This record gives sequence, C-alpha cells and structure tokens, in this order.
Amino acid sequence: MIDETHDPARRSWVAGADGHAEFPIQNLPFGVFCPADGAPRGGVAIGDHIFDVGAACAAGLFSGAARDAAEAVGEPTLNRFFGLGAGPRQALRRQLGALLDASAPARPELLHRAAECAMQLPAAVGDYTDFYAGIHHATNAGALFRPDNPLLPNYKWVPIGYHGRASSLLPSGVAVRRPNGQRNSQPGSPPAFGPSRRLDYELELGVWVGTGNELGSPVPISEAGGHIAGFCLLNDWSARDIQAWEYQPLGPFLAKNFASTLSCWVVTPEALAPFRAPAMTRAEGDPAPLPYLDDAADRAAGGLDVELSVSMRSAAMRAAGLPAQRLSVGNARYLYWSFAQMLAHHTAGGCNLRPGDLLGSGTISAPDPGGYGSLLELSAGGKTQITLPGGETRSFIEDGDEISFAAHARREGFATIGFGACSAVVLPSR
Amino acid sequence: MIDETHDPARRSWVAGADGHAEFPIQNLPFGVFCPADGAPRGGVAIGDHIFDVGAACAAGLFSGAARDAAEAVGEPTLNRFFGLGAGPRQALRRQLGALLDASAPARPELLHRAAECAMQLPAAVGDYTDFYAGIHHATNAGALFRPDNPLLPNYKWVPIGYHGRASSLLPSGVAVRRPNGQRNSQPGSPPAFGPSRRLDYELELGVWVGTGNELGSPVPISEAGGHIAGFCLLNDWSARDIQAWEYQPLGPFLAKNFASTLSCWVVTPEALAPFRAPAMTRAEGDPAPLPYLDDAADRAAGGLDVELSVSMRSAAMRAAGLPAQRLSVGNARYLYWSFAQMLAHHTAGGCNLRPGDLLGSGTISAPDPGGYGSLLELSAGGKTQITLPGGETRSFIEDGDEISFAAHARREGFATIGFGACSAVVLPSR
Repeated sequence: MIDETHDPARRSWVAGADGHAEFPIQNLPFGVFCPADGAPRGGVAIGDHIFDVGAACAAGLFSGAARDAAEAVGEPTLNRFFGLGAGPRQALRRQLGALLDASAPARPELLHRAAECAMQLPAAVGDYTDFYAGIHHATNAGALFRPDNPLLPNYKWVPIGYHGRASSLLPSGVAVRRPNGQRNSQPGSPPAFGPSRRLDYELELGVWVGTGNELGSPVPISEAGGHIAGFCLLNDWSARDIQAWEYQPLGPFLAKNFASTLSCWVVTPEALAPFRAPAMTRAEGDPAPLPYLDDAADRAAGGLDVELSVSMRSAAMRAAGLPAQRLSVGNARYLYWSFAQMLAHHTAGGCNLRPGDLLGSGTISAPDPGGYGSLLELSAGGKTQITLPGGETRSFIEDGDEISFAAHARREGFATIGFGACSAVVLPSR
Repeated sequence: MIDETHDPARRSWVAGADGHAEFPIQNLPFGVFCPADGAPRGGVAIGDHIFDVGAACAAGLFSGAARDAAEAVGEPTLNRFFGLGAGPRQALRRQLGALLDASAPARPELLHRAAECAMQLPAAVGDYTDFYAGIHHATNAGALFRPDNPLLPNYKWVPIGYHGRASSLLPSGVAVRRPNGQRNSQPGSPPAFGPSRRLDYELELGVWVGTGNELGSPVPISEAGGHIAGFCLLNDWSARDIQAWEYQPLGPFLAKNFASTLSCWVVTPEALAPFRAPAMTRAEGDPAPLPYLDDAADRAAGGLDVELSVSMRSAAMRAAGLPAQRLSVGNARYLYWSFAQMLAHHTAGGCNLRPGDLLGSGTISAPDPGGYGSLLELSAGGKTQITLPGGETRSFIEDGDEISFAAHARREGFATIGFGACSAVVLPSR
C-alpha cells in the first residue's frame, strides 16, 4: 500500500537525509548497530545517521503497537521484532516517519553517526535457505555444468532451493578468506587439495522471515507475503572448482559454506511498496504454477523492481587510487519465482520457518551479459576475461579484490531508496 | 582410552541399573529432561532413572573441572557443556561414575523416574549437516536414481555432505506428519501436488559437535575426534517421490526438511571407547584419503562397532497387541568415512562449527539386505514388499506406522550399552 510514508515531498530534520542515495525518510530500514561505547541494539538508518529506536522508546516517544515493536527493535537482535509481524512493524514505521519528519522537534541526542558504529547481522539466523529463482542464471550456469541439459525439467514447476550454512553468514565489511578444497581439473585423474582457483560471487537478494509457522502447518500462498519482514543484499560466495567436483548428488557444500556476506539493513516491504512490478521471466507457454503456488494478488503485486549492481576494486586499484569498476547492472525483476512463492513452497511439506530465518533468492542475472550476476557467467566459465582500470584482467576473483553489491529502487514520482553496503575484500587462503 | 569407568564388574546403587540394556553405569549418557513439575535441565541416564546433575552440583557433589561441567549440564540446553570440550566432560564422567557406584552413598533424592519425564533435544542446533558416508546405501540408492552410474566418481575422495534443516529436528516420541509435495511419476507429464506416496526412514547416527572452530580455521584431522561431544540415533525421514523430482541440481530440500527424529541421549566417545573397530568398507585398490583426511591414529582407532536395528509397528499391529517387527540389523562399521574425517572435511574450507551443531552420518546399510537402512533399499525402490505380522504388506511407510531405531554396543568382557529410543509414529498428511 502506498501511503503518506512514501510522499517524495516529505523532509526530515536529520541533516543530509533528504535526497540521500540510500536512506531518505521514505526508506527507514531496520538494523542492529553497535556504537563505539555501547552494546548492540536495533536502530533505523536515516541519511548518514542511525536513529536509536530503543532510546526513543525509553524516552516515551512511541505509543500502542508501535511502542511494543520499538521495544523489540531495541534488543540486540531483531528476531523478536520480526516475529511480531506486519501490523506492529507498519505502526512503528508510521510513528518513526512522524518523529523524523521535518515538522517534528529535532532529537539529535537520539542519533548516532553511522560511520562511528559497527553494524552487525540484524538477527540470529536459525536456518538459511538458498533458492535458485534467477532463471537466466540457472540457464547460464546449467549450460556450463550440463551443456546438453541446462535447465532441468523441474525448474518451471518447483522453486528449487536447498539448505545453506547459517554459521558463516557475515555482515558487510568483514573480509572473506579464500577456501581450500578438493578440485578435480581432469576427469579420471585424482583430485588435488588447495586454494580455490575459481572463486566467484553470486548476486542475490535475501529475505528475512518475519512471523514463522508451526511444524506441519504450511503457509498458504495468499498469506506468504505477510511472513516477510524485509530484504537485504546477499553475496553467496562460490568456489566453482570445488562445487563442480563435490555437488553431485546432494548439492553444493564446501563450495559455498565458507562465507556468505549480507547487507546489514532490513529494507521493509512497506518501503518497497511503490517498487513492485511484474516479473520479466515467465514466458508464453510456460506451465501455470500449481495451485499452492498460484495467487492472483501475488501475481498482481508483481516482483521487486530493484536495480542491482556489482563492482570490483582490486588491491592494485586501491593502491593507485582508482575507483571501483562496475561489472554489471541487473534487476530483481528477473526472478522466475516471487518471494511469496518461495516462502509458500518452503513450508508446503510442513517445514517450519522461524523469525529471523533467511531465504536467498538465488543469483539474479539479466538476460544480457551486462546484467549477469556472477563471474562464472561474465567470463563464460573462465574462458573470457574482464579488463579492469589499470590493465589487470579477471576471469575469477583474485586475492585482495573487493566485491561490492548495491541495490536501488527508483521510480518517477518517488524518492529513490537503497539497501546499503554489501561488500567484502577477499583474503588469501590459509 | 579404556579405564575403570568401563569395568563390567562395576555396580550402581540405582535399582535396575546393573545389566540394564541401555543405561548401565558404564554408559552415563547426557540429555535434557523435564520432570512433570519442573524446568528443563540436563541429566544423566542411569537404568530407568535420570540423575539430576544440576541438583547434584548444587549439593556440592562435584569438584574441579567436573563441577564446572556439571554446572553447564544443569542448564536447559547442553550447548555450553558441549563447548567445554573433552577434558571437563571426562572429569565429570569419572566423578559421576564414583557418585553412582554401589560403594557410594545412595542419593535417591537426586533421581527422577525416566518414564515420568519428558525428554527434549539435548541442544539448540545451530546448523545440521547430513553426510552420505554409508557406501552400501549410496550404491544401492544411486543404482535406483542412476542405474548406469550408482556411485559417482567423487564418492571415494570426498565425504559427501549437504546442509539440512535445523528447525524441524524432533526428539524421539514426537509424531511426524506425512508431507505433501510435488511428485512426478511420469517423465514429461506435469507433476501433481499431494501426500508423499513413498515415505521412508533413513537409519543414521548423529554426531553432536563439542568445541567449535573459528571461521577460516579448519580443524586438522588429528584433532577432529576431540571436537565430538557424543553420538545419537537419527531418522532422516525422506519422501522419495518428492526427492526424485526436486533433487537436481541442488540436492534434497522438501523431501527431507519436514522432520528428522533424534534419540535424546548423548552417548559419549568415552562410553564408546571399548567399541571401536576398523571400518568394513574400504576396499583393496580404493584411493588413499587425501592428506587432510588421513590420520594414522584415526585409522587405528577405527569406526564404531555399534549394532543398529530398525523395527516397524503398524496401527493394526498395535490394535492387535502384536509386537514390533524387526526390519533390519546393521552396524555402524559400514561407514566409508570416519566421523573425524567428516568433521575435518566440513571445516577444511574454513566453515565454522559451533557447540551443539549436529552431523548426520548418512544412511548406514550393511552389504546384505538384512542390514539395509531404508525401505527404498529393502523394497528395491518399491518393487518388492515386506510382510508384517498380521498379514499387512509394506513397500513404504503407511499412516499410523511407528518406526523405531535401536543401537547397542556389545563386546565380550564389557557391559552392553545402548543409545535409547529413536521412535515416531507417522500421522496422515494435512
């Protein structure tokens, strides 16, 4: 629903918030921050500042359901806040908007400079599931692993997903170490153990689960959207050589569980309400979704029209003062399955989700190379190279490279909102 | 190390403990129990009773490292106890043995009747990983899914594993609901959504992770065994029709995440020390493990010589007062990879394990049908049927069937120890 919280004319008393590229007053994402001298607690990004929701709550600035939600946001993780569901979250969003509005009294004592705070993961993740809903990626990657059989027969029926590793989820900014593992470059010859030579990123959106469901009680597709607390960026780092050797028959394991990097701000479905648009992937003649995945309202609401970009900056580029190089620009509309479909499918057999669980979308690639969401695709499986400013070339990630994702929702007549940083430098293997 | 705690002549003052089929004084497994009128806390099984470790600690019965460990056992989950590692656990085992010894003063006020307590999962599981180390199962199942290619080329190099679902892990005794899901009985025709028609169990051992490791810091194979807090039984319920349709290319998902049943007692490596024996699966000509998986001490220690059995009791059998029917008897020695190899492999790329994480062994089948660990194998993929007492037949599990696993370690000159119940009734789908 588009309401006064999306009014592009709205201004904030927080200096620098109006027209901010990521966090104007129309966004108000939630996250967990730790000031230099304090304990971790939840807050809201506004411009280059963080509004201390717990402190504002203690000062008596919220009422009703918003007060209960603000109390939960003030905790060291947002799990309980997520579990409260959409109603309290929406009430809090409205009161936060009013408190931060230019017409309200300035409360600078409730602000922290974001640059002086360490961000943490917003929630303790019970289970992390990664989907595979980017059909162009599935087709491109499938063609490399299985040239004669790129898109498997189940793809347009089943929102394919698998379980990932929760313990190695990292907030943006934490360096990632190149994994060692078994690689088998020549079929029939013994594998070798050593540093991955084909380290890659995967550009994904993450979904934070809000209210959960009881074991054995599936979430109907018509209600699934209401179980989403918000969205983030997700880099599903992947060691392609380890993956190719280990993934049959049970799927990726060590190729992906060494680290996954998340942006730290939870962008709410409310903030994204103006940026829904039909997905751009369901082709004429594709099978209709089975009834448990089919919902008229979800179809009408559409996917997320969010621009996604990847950039790389090598150690040499940093040393030379060169800016990061943009590698691709895509869009979340290139997902085949909606987030509601993924969530409903996840629970269709009875599996229980808990507040703070994380779902990944799968790598999102556009149909054209300018919007490919992984180096595997950009380098055609390592066959071609990208040239960086300064003359270096890359087929895969080298030690010292920094990979950064960005996401922005733009629409004529609305303030642009962003997701914040999802970035990490790769360290040499041990 | 075999020491006085394994002395078969040792007796306990607890009535019924001596010669108990599962929990004589030589076992002393840890678990979390909840008496009718109390809060959940850790205890130790002794005969048909549970010794209240936290209460014993409060009474001043432990000293030194054992006291610290006993304090941790008294908490509502054993995660912190697991994280203390082998030293404090071994110290506690020795003092518990002395306290429960027939020569010690009886302390009946510290006992609870097990039948009057509800057992819970021993730990909050951060991540659950399922391996595939039962080579006879991998060969049998592979032959059904891929007749021309049963055992993939990576199998004898890589301890194949994948991430499972932590939220749906259940303690023994909780009923399991048959999942709905997509099934595709005829290639090329559209799938149908409905109750699984090929519901199966998988007979596995579970490993509780003790001390963890930092992200990016692999556990060397020589130290891996020291990170194991103990063992349990694990039923990795599997919907074969859902699995066959969804599992490519990223592995099983809804086919297995609707429930996994665990036995509730954590049988320690110390209790199992007399029951180590070489694995029975590595054939002449098999490749030597890569160095990061190869440890002379682990090879010499061998696998676990633990007898594993499965039984079934249908609703009709219960109504007629018929006892459960034994379906198979196997042994944990039929694993291709040791638990230390699984754990070292898991961390080889840098993935971090945390205290209370759970590893599954994969289905353990003997080479002969009498020891097959799943109905998929016992019924040759559904082609043959088992006849139950009373005349019913089964290829897969029917609603109302109760599946029970048992595990016992037996060796001449030692007291037999058991793992306790791992059992659940299957309810009809919703």
